[in-house]
Amino acid sequence: MPVLSNIGCLASCAAGGGQSEIRPISNAAMAWEEGRILWVGTRSEEPVQYRGIPRLNAGGGLVVPGLVDCHTHLAFGGWRAGEFEQRIRGESYLQIAHRGGGILSTVEKTRLSTSRELARRCLGFLAEMAALGTTTAECKSGYGLDLKTEIRLLELYRDLDQRQPIRLVSTFLGAHAIPAEYATNPEEYVRLIVEGMLPEIAGRKLARFCDVFVEESAFSREQGRTILEAGRRLGLAPKLHADQLSDGGGALLAAEVGAMSADHLERISAQGIQALAERDVVAVSLPLATLYLNQSPMPARRLIEAGVRVAVATDFNPGSAPSYHLPLAMMLACNLQRMTPAEALKGATLFAAKALGLDGEIGSLEAGKRADFAIIDAEDVNHWLYHFRPTACRATFIEGRQVAGVGLGPVASD
Amino acid sequence: MPVLSNIGCLASCAAGGGQSEIRPISNAAMAWEEGRILWVGTRSEEPVQYRGIPRLNAGGGLVVPGLVDCHTHLAFGGWRAGEFEQRIRGESYLQIAHRGGGILSTVEKTRLSTSRELARRCLGFLAEMAALGTTTAECKSGYGLDLKTEIRLLELYRDLDQRQPIRLVSTFLGAHAIPAEYATNPEEYVRLIVEGMLPEIAGRKLARFCDVFVEESAFSREQGRTILEAGRRLGLAPKLHADQLSDGGGALLAAEVGAMSADHLERISAQGIQALAERDVVAVSLPLATLYLNQSPMPARRLIEAGVRVAVATDFNPGSAPSYHLPLAMMLACNLQRMTPAEALKGATLFAAKALGLDGEIGSLEAGKRADFAIIDAEDVNHWLYHFRPTACRATFIEGRQVAGVGLGPVASD
Repeated sequence: MPVLSNIGCLASCAAGGGQSEIRPISNAAMAWEEGRILWVGTRSEEPVQYRGIPRLNAGGGLVVPGLVDCHTHLAFGGWRAGEFEQRIRGESYLQIAHRGGGILSTVEKTRLSTSRELARRCLGFLAEMAALGTTTAECKSGYGLDLKTEIRLLELYRDLDQRQPIRLVSTFLGAHAIPAEYATNPEEYVRLIVEGMLPEIAGRKLARFCDVFVEESAFSREQGRTILEAGRRLGLAPKLHADQLSDGGGALLAAEVGAMSADHLERISAQGIQALAERDVVAVSLPLATLYLNQSPMPARRLIEAGVRVAVATDFNPGSAPSYHLPLAMMLACNLQRMTPAEALKGATLFAAKALGLDGEIGSLEAGKRADFAIIDAEDVNHWLYHFRPTACRATFIEGRQVAGVGLGPVASD
Repeated sequence: MPVLSNIGCLASCAAGGGQSEIRPISNAAMAWEEGRILWVGTRSEEPVQYRGIPRLNAGGGLVVPGLVDCHTHLAFGGWRAGEFEQRIRGESYLQIAHRGGGILSTVEKTRLSTSRELARRCLGFLAEMAALGTTTAECKSGYGLDLKTEIRLLELYRDLDQRQPIRLVSTFLGAHAIPAEYATNPEEYVRLIVEGMLPEIAGRKLARFCDVFVEESAFSREQGRTILEAGRRLGLAPKLHADQLSDGGGALLAAEVGAMSADHLERISAQGIQALAERDVVAVSLPLATLYLNQSPMPARRLIEAGVRVAVATDFNPGSAPSYHLPLAMMLACNLQRMTPAEALKGATLFAAKALGLDGEIGSLEAGKRADFAIIDAEDVNHWLYHFRPTACRATFIEGRQVAGVGLGPVASD
C-alpha cells in the first residue's frame, strides 16, 4: 500500500459542484491499494495506520486526476499535412473534402495500412500521451467505413488496451463520412451501418458507444437519429459530432436521444444549449479543431452559465486536430473559450469521465476510485496551464502503477 | 570535420527570396568544420573528399536552421499565473496593470531576486529551449527599471551566454514601463535612462540593442524617439514594442529611427505597414501574446504582401506570453496569422536573425555560416508544424556541437 506524500497541492476534482469546483487540498497526501484510492487528505489528517509505510515523494508538485481524453480518432493511416497549408491559403475544410482530400483520403490510407503498422503508430502516440498525464482515452473508429476495416480498427483498440497502460474506451464511428462507394446512395450506407455493422460490433462487444457526424457534408439529423437509435437498442450509448461547421440541430438531436455527449458545438444555437442543459448531456469542447479550422470557439461560457458540463478533449485526428497534447487543448480552452484553468481541469477529468460514463470510476481523486493521477511541476492549476511547456508532467500513474516520467524518491522526514 | 547524412529534407532557408522561400533540399548532406558550415547539398553531389569521413545519421529526418528566438524577456522574478485567470474572467491587461499587477509587479519580484536565483531559473528555461531546437535567443532587460537591477540583468545574460550553449543577444529595455517611483514624473525617468543608464550600459558593452515599449500605458512616441536616438548615438541599434494594444504610431517611429525590428504590431495601421516596407524594418510577430491577451492577430498577410519580412518569436515573459516554446509560436503564426509553415520557418530563422543583425552569421544553412541546426522528426516543414507534439526535435547542434537530444548513430552504408 503506497502513500504519495509531499504534495504541494492536490486538485481532487471530487464529485459534486460546478465546473470550477476542483476542491484543491494543500499539503496533501494520498494512499492507495490494489489500484484504488484508500484515502486522500491533508498530511496532518493522515490516518495513523499509514504512518510507518514507506512513501513516494511528489516533490511539492501539483497532483491532478489522470487526464481523460474523451474524444480521439487514434488509429489512422497517413497524414494530411498538405491540407494544413491549403487551409492557411484560404481553402475551406469542405472545399478540400470535395476535392478528394479530408476524411475520405485518410480512409483510403487506413484501409491500405496493416493492423501491425497502425498498432506501431498508436503505441507511439499513446506513450507520448501517457507522458503528458493522460490515463484514459476514448478511441473512435471511422476511417474504415466498411465492415472489415471498422472491425479491424475496433479490434486494434481492444488489443492496444491490453498492450499498453492507458485505459482505452472504444466508439464505433461508422457514420464519420459517406464512403466514396456510396456517394450516390447514402441511404444504402446508413442501412449497412444499421443492419450490417452495428449488430456485428455490438454482438462482439467491440465498442461502448455509437457516434455520428451530423453535418451538412456528412449525415443528416434524421440519418443520425436512425443510426443512434439502432445503436442504443443494441447497447451502444449515443454520442454525436454536433454543430461543428453549421448549426445542423445536432445538439437538439443529442438531447432527444439522451446522448452521453455532444462534441464540437462551435455553431450551437441558444435552443441547443437549453436542450443539453435540460437533459444533462456533456458538451465536449475540442479547441484544437477550432484553432486549426480557424473557427469561432464553442461558446463555453454560455454553456457553463446554462448549467451544461463542458468537457475538454483533443479530437486528435490527421486533419483538423493533429495533436494529442491534452494540456495544450486545455490551455486553448482557457485562451479561446474563456474557461478558467480550474474549469478546464474539471473538463479534462471528471466531466470527460462523465462523457464516457466512467465518472463513478475515474476522473477525480477520492476514496474508492482508481488511483489514476499525474504529478505536475507547478504550484497550482493556474500556473500549470498558463506556463505552457513541452510537458509539465513529472510522473503519471495508472491504477497505482507509474507508467511515465521520472523516478520518485522517498520522503526523508515525513 | 563531421558530415551529417541521411537527411530526408533540409530546409536551408538560404539567403535571398521572399518569406515563403525556404529552399528545401531532399536527400541532403551537410559538412562542417570548426563550427562553420563547409558544404550543404544533395547526397549525390557530395564532394569526393568527404566520402571517407565518418558521418552522423539524421535518421531520414528534417533538418532546419537552429531556431532564433528574437524576442524574449528571459530573466524575471516570480510568476503571474493569477493574472491569467483574471484576464479570462474579463479584466484587461491595462486594468490589471492599473491595479498594481502587470509588469511592475514583476519588477518588484525581480529586484528582490538574487542573480543566483535568476540564473538558476534561466538555465532551466534555456535547457528546455535548446531541446526544442532554439540555438540563439535575444534577451531583454526591463524588469529592473533602476540602474542597478538593469545592469544586473544584462550582466546575468552576459554570464549565461558563457555558461550554457544557446547564443544570447542582449537588449536594454529600461523603457519597458514607468517605474512606480517615477509615476508622477515620467520625464524624469526618461532622463535617467538617457543620461544615467544608457551611457553606463553602452560603455560596458552590456547590450547590443535599445528597445522601448511605445504604448499609451508606457512611453509616448516622442519619449521613444528621445531614448532610441540617444541609444543609437551610443552604438545601440533601436528596436520597438509597437502598436500592440493601440495604434500609437510605433511602426512609423520604427521606420523613422531605422529600427532593426518593430515587434507585436497587432494594431498596425496601413501607413505603418507601408513605412516598415520602405525602410526594410523586420516585423516581429508574437502570436503567443496575441493568444494570451485575446487580441486580433498581427495582419501578417498584409505585411508580407507589402514586402515586409515577418519574424516569429515567443515574447517569453511572465505576463502575456508565459512560454518559450518557439515551435508553438510558429504553429500559432500559421493558425492565427495565416502564415504557411514555410513562412513561419523563415520567420523563426533567417528573418529572426535579421531582426538581430545576425543574418550574415546564422539563420540559414549555407557554406560559411555557423553550423547551428536542429534535426526534426518530420517529413517536411508542413508536417512538423501541423503535427504538434511536446517536442518534435530529435537533436540540436550549435556551432557543430550537439547540445540537446538523443545520440545520433553512424550511417551504415553511405
